[in-house]
Amino acid sequence: MDKVTQNIDLVSGDVETKRADIRAYFVNTWALYESVFDTLASDEAFYERPQPLRHPLIFYFGHTATFFINKLMLAKLIDRRINPEFESLFAIGVDEMSWDDLDETHYDWPPVQAVRDYRDQVKDIVCRLIDTIDFTLPIDWDSPLWPVMMGIEHERIHLETSSVLIRQLDLEKVRPHAFFPACTAVGPAIENKLVAVDGGDVVLGKERDHRLYGWDNEYGHAEMDVPPFRASRYLVSNGEYLGFINAGGYEEDRYWDEEGLAWRNYHHATMPEFWRGEPGNYRLRLMTEEIPLPLNWPVEVCYLEAKAFCNWKSEQTGCHVRMPDEAEYRRLLQVAGLEAEHHESPISANWNLEHYASSVPVDTFAHGDFYDVVGNVWQWNETPIYPFDGFEVHPLYDDFTVPTFDNRHNLIKGGSWISTGNEIALHSRYAFRRHFYQHAGFRYVVSDKPVKTDFDVYETDELVSQYCEFHYGDACFGIPNFPKAIAQIALEAVEAKGKALDIGCSVGRTAFEIADVFEEVDALDFSARFVQVGARMQAKGRIRYERQEEGELVTFQERTLEGLGLTGDYSNIHFLQQDATNMKPIFSGYDLVIAANLIDRLNNPARFLKEIPNRMNLGGILLIASPYTWLEDFTPKCNWLGGFKKDGEPVTTLDGLHALLDDSFEMIREPQKVPFVIRETRHKHQHTLSEVTLWKKK
Amino acid sequence: MDKVTQNIDLVSGDVETKRADIRAYFVNTWALYESVFDTLASDEAFYERPQPLRHPLIFYFGHTATFFINKLMLAKLIDRRINPEFESLFAIGVDEMSWDDLDETHYDWPPVQAVRDYRDQVKDIVCRLIDTIDFTLPIDWDSPLWPVMMGIEHERIHLETSSVLIRQLDLEKVRPHAFFPACTAVGPAIENKLVAVDGGDVVLGKERDHRLYGWDNEYGHAEMDVPPFRASRYLVSNGEYLGFINAGGYEEDRYWDEEGLAWRNYHHATMPEFWRGEPGNYRLRLMTEEIPLPLNWPVEVCYLEAKAFCNWKSEQTGCHVRMPDEAEYRRLLQVAGLEAEHHESPISANWNLEHYASSVPVDTFAHGDFYDVVGNVWQWNETPIYPFDGFEVHPLYDDFTVPTFDNRHNLIKGGSWISTGNEIALHSRYAFRRHFYQHAGFRYVVSDKPVKTDFDVYETDELVSQYCEFHYGDACFGIPNFPKAIAQIALEAVEAKGKALDIGCSVGRTAFEIADVFEEVDALDFSARFVQVGARMQAKGRIRYERQEEGELVTFQERTLEGLGLTGDYSNIHFLQQDATNMKPIFSGYDLVIAANLIDRLNNPARFLKEIPNRMNLGGILLIASPYTWLEDFTPKCNWLGGFKKDGEPVTTLDGLHALLDDSFEMIREPQKVPFVIRETRHKHQHTLSEVTLWKKK
Repeated sequence: MDKVTQNIDLVSGDVETKRADIRAYFVNTWALYESVFDTLASDEAFYERPQPLRHPLIFYFGHTATFFINKLMLAKLIDRRINPEFESLFAIGVDEMSWDDLDETHYDWPPVQAVRDYRDQVKDIVCRLIDTIDFTLPIDWDSPLWPVMMGIEHERIHLETSSVLIRQLDLEKVRPHAFFPACTAVGPAIENKLVAVDGGDVVLGKERDHRLYGWDNEYGHAEMDVPPFRASRYLVSNGEYLGFINAGGYEEDRYWDEEGLAWRNYHHATMPEFWRGEPGNYRLRLMTEEIPLPLNWPVEVCYLEAKAFCNWKSEQTGCHVRMPDEAEYRRLLQVAGLEAEHHESPISANWNLEHYASSVPVDTFAHGDFYDVVGNVWQWNETPIYPFDGFEVHPLYDDFTVPTFDNRHNLIKGGSWISTGNEIALHSRYAFRRHFYQHAGFRYVVSDKPVKTDFDVYETDELVSQYCEFHYGDACFGIPNFPKAIAQIALEAVEAKGKALDIGCSVGRTAFEIADVFEEVDALDFSARFVQVGARMQAKGRIRYERQEEGELVTFQERTLEGLGLTGDYSNIHFLQQDATNMKPIFSGYDLVIAANLIDRLNNPARFLKEIPNRMNLGGILLIASPYTWLEDFTPKCNWLGGFKKDGEPVTTLDGLHALLDDSFEMIREPQKVPFVIRETRHKHQHTLSEVTLWKKK
Repeated sequence: MDKVTQNIDLVSGDVETKRADIRAYFVNTWALYESVFDTLASDEAFYERPQPLRHPLIFYFGHTATFFINKLMLAKLIDRRINPEFESLFAIGVDEMSWDDLDETHYDWPPVQAVRDYRDQVKDIVCRLIDTIDFTLPIDWDSPLWPVMMGIEHERIHLETSSVLIRQLDLEKVRPHAFFPACTAVGPAIENKLVAVDGGDVVLGKERDHRLYGWDNEYGHAEMDVPPFRASRYLVSNGEYLGFINAGGYEEDRYWDEEGLAWRNYHHATMPEFWRGEPGNYRLRLMTEEIPLPLNWPVEVCYLEAKAFCNWKSEQTGCHVRMPDEAEYRRLLQVAGLEAEHHESPISANWNLEHYASSVPVDTFAHGDFYDVVGNVWQWNETPIYPFDGFEVHPLYDDFTVPTFDNRHNLIKGGSWISTGNEIALHSRYAFRRHFYQHAGFRYVVSDKPVKTDFDVYETDELVSQYCEFHYGDACFGIPNFPKAIAQIALEAVEAKGKALDIGCSVGRTAFEIADVFEEVDALDFSARFVQVGARMQAKGRIRYERQEEGELVTFQERTLEGLGLTGDYSNIHFLQQDATNMKPIFSGYDLVIAANLIDRLNNPARFLKEIPNRMNLGGILLIASPYTWLEDFTPKCNWLGGFKKDGEPVTTLDGLHALLDDSFEMIREPQKVPFVIRETRHKHQHTLSEVTLWKKK
């Protein structure tokens, strides 16, 4: 078995060579993964839980095989399971779980040999599939070999994470293995220093036709102008970190942010996870051995510890010390001459299992003015993972990335000694919770540039998502977009075009549709959740939301103003939370008021209608659109405008509107029914007619 | 003023003559109505409540004028109210009300003179309308003069009912009036006797183009074959009724049915409403005076008393004594030679104010072998009012009749001395609650024919009504009828055509659509309310339901199998309540099973699907249609067939169906999405796609 592998070019070449390459890559990955488990001292060790909130290693041993079966089933490349019981047992539980999920009485783990046999069966099936499947080049998202590549790269991730778990097992449960030699170059601490980096532009995100396999989060586009900054020449070493500890770093609350403090207190942390011993006599746990703490190796910490260190360092130096953000890290690659794929122009670094099964001194691999810009240990970034413009979810693995778009998973970059495959590709974007341990440390930078850490998350609220789709999503049953249709009707009727009000604007589409024509547009809604979507669309030109498809299954949707042909400025729209029946006096002087699907959702629609003429200019247009769906949940029956019998005779809502409005308005057109569709699932919709009436202020 | 009027022929003649006739009829009615109130001794009497649960007479004085304004507003023949306050005050309260509604502090009745002035204003407006309105002959439902006729006939009804209320005022509140002379012919009791009536066919209901004004309930069609019966020559007289009282009729519970007993006990009734005094010294209250009980006049009682009398009479004679039903009453008209309109061939009778303002002796007006087949007092029938085939609601007065289709309002026939206009038309069908008093008595018949007293009422349950419309109603958005489309897909797929099962049949349309092709069709639903609609459609070929339009406003819908082109026999359909997941063993041997929009409404759909193959023949077809709208309200999440992630991977419902069915079935076609629309209001609909899969039993 080759320990060192190269990523597969999925674009060029011929089919049969590609088939052979992928088969070899698969077989190599499979063997490599199993070899990690050879460091376990006995079968018994498979059943140990290295971390109290994680499954025993037997789970991970079976998991990467089951993953293949599950994805191949989903892709309909195979049509039956190998072992349904295993494939349920080994499917879920990669992340931290609650204590309840981990109650061992819930699990009846099979013998190691049974899992080995299972792995053999799966290996045969995958090999046979690779051998026989019909495919063409390039291999892209839709290729039948994509799920195969997905399974391989997934196993390579677990190759690394399993090595971390093994590092957390008791020493007596593991044994040295010739395949995983630790570095022996140990020395005194090396003094770090800051190196200036010129500013420059970076482009993140890769193209859909890129030649390497990629996870969904890598695709898309982001461009940044990175201002000059300084960065530490070396990764922070154990020796440098010891300064923080010796300065009382773990005791002083002020170095820790809120999240860090909560973590430190909960875990009673006093030193990094892989450190052993006590002050003056620290040792370091490697994969299969423990050694005196090598002061010149990179320290391995979680983000929260790295952040506390930076805060301490800031205090010490009076500078803004922090970790790089994603763009700054890319700029480091640029200035180090590493903005390339490893397999195209090999980079000398402690990664890809090319050297040791451990870190090496931080002054071993120079990259330009820096060391370890890639390799040795991962480097925490300040940036939480977020979707690039144009992000799409791969349908075969829709929960790989999206659940991590929560501003709580920070990027790690550069790879460690055991990072391989996609992990060491230029565009890879792995992210973990900030308290998570990997073979990961950090490099610090000094910069006054604020770092963006609050990215838009996917709207998951069912109702808000339905309205996102209603305003910005796909047409259903060929019915034209309703908020746009309302805007068009209004624009045909108005004369003066000073101020417009969209009251009950929901998520804001109509406001965008009229903003080009009016000087100012106030877009108000009672629901802050709705208005925020409009405001986000205005600020970012983009919204993202989960769309319900069937039961709990969702798809992830992104919509942009540009994609809807809305290319205006829109700074004249004012999205604000406001009660339609209790608006501030400032909301007046309107030439147009749009109240679409509003009146039958107000507690007291008459109050709104009696007041609105006072807020309008002479000759101004009031557009009311409503399906007149009166419901006592929203409007007490005594406040309905119509839809009841009064004094024995039917009163329609249109009658009620006339009664309230005829004194101040002239109805300028016959009522018109405009349809709209609200999509609840891919099969279920509300299909409604909204009656539009136009009233001209007298 | 002419006291005696004739009904207006609305079909023939010329416009200007008709205009003059209608104007005269209106003015006459108006004056006649006011003259009734001239019997009140003082203005003070207007504020007396003749009945504790009814408004004072001032309400009725204003009410008939307000009715004109309200209907003319609704018909858009006038565009402003005369007196909105009066028109609210005088609009509602004709029927008995609850004590709460009648709290006098809620009402601030105006002075009589103000109401007279108001009446004068309304009269002028109606006259001007009649004088100027553009109309053509015939005057039909859509004519602008129809609401005028409606107002006139409405006032003529109140002419009579107000005279009843005046009869219930204290004697000192009324005064004799030359216009309303009581009969003075008083004599001893007349012995009644039964007269045989030959059987014969009767046709009830009038044509839409009939020349007289009619209320909605009169139109349509019903044919009956009336078997021979015997009927009392005379109306039951006070003398004859006294026999019942003297026999302890009011004391003996056994003569009273449940409803009658409840009424008698609540009111402590011991004699008819208009009787005064005590045994041996009874007196009778007329409109403005009290006289010794005239034994030869017809007794006036409510239906419940008349029924108790008949029960006593049955006990006495050993025969089935009761009142006639509507068909028997018509047969009486036939044999008496009175099956004609009064104005075409005048009938000598004590009605139409042609003789007295009171009853006359029961042997005064002979009609063939009988007396008082019409006139003198109304005659209670055994038949509760019900809609004829082809019944439609007049949109200007949709609550005139429909609320009385409740099997609790019995027909009264023949008219009284003060019945005029439509009341004495051949086709009129007035109905009152069985405990209600009018100038009404009865004639008894002897017949063994059971009387139908349980008619279909309008389906008012919102959900059931929605499904009536879904299965039998109008198409929305051009989407073809879904239950029919499902039937067609099933019929294209089946081979053997023995037994079919429509499980979750709802209100049954699909069952009718396949019944011609299959030998037997079992149509089962968990909801008895739904199945009953199907069964009713099967038995009657017709259903009726309220359809929600806007808020609380409804329209009344009738649908027939024939109108849907369903002209088969359908006796092979078996509508039954049954739980799909717990069907009796007898439900088996099927060549076709249709489960449309069922599985996502079952608690345990897997149980149903695992069992269903055992109930099917080899080669039989299982059709499943579902939008896969899984909701925990219906199906616990653990029982969903799909729409969730299992072991991390998405499971669609189609996956779940395959997993459950592939052992026993072959899926014979690609899934197909069939749309359906459920109409909630005239503006709001559910528009859904149901995925249809076809499975052939292996």
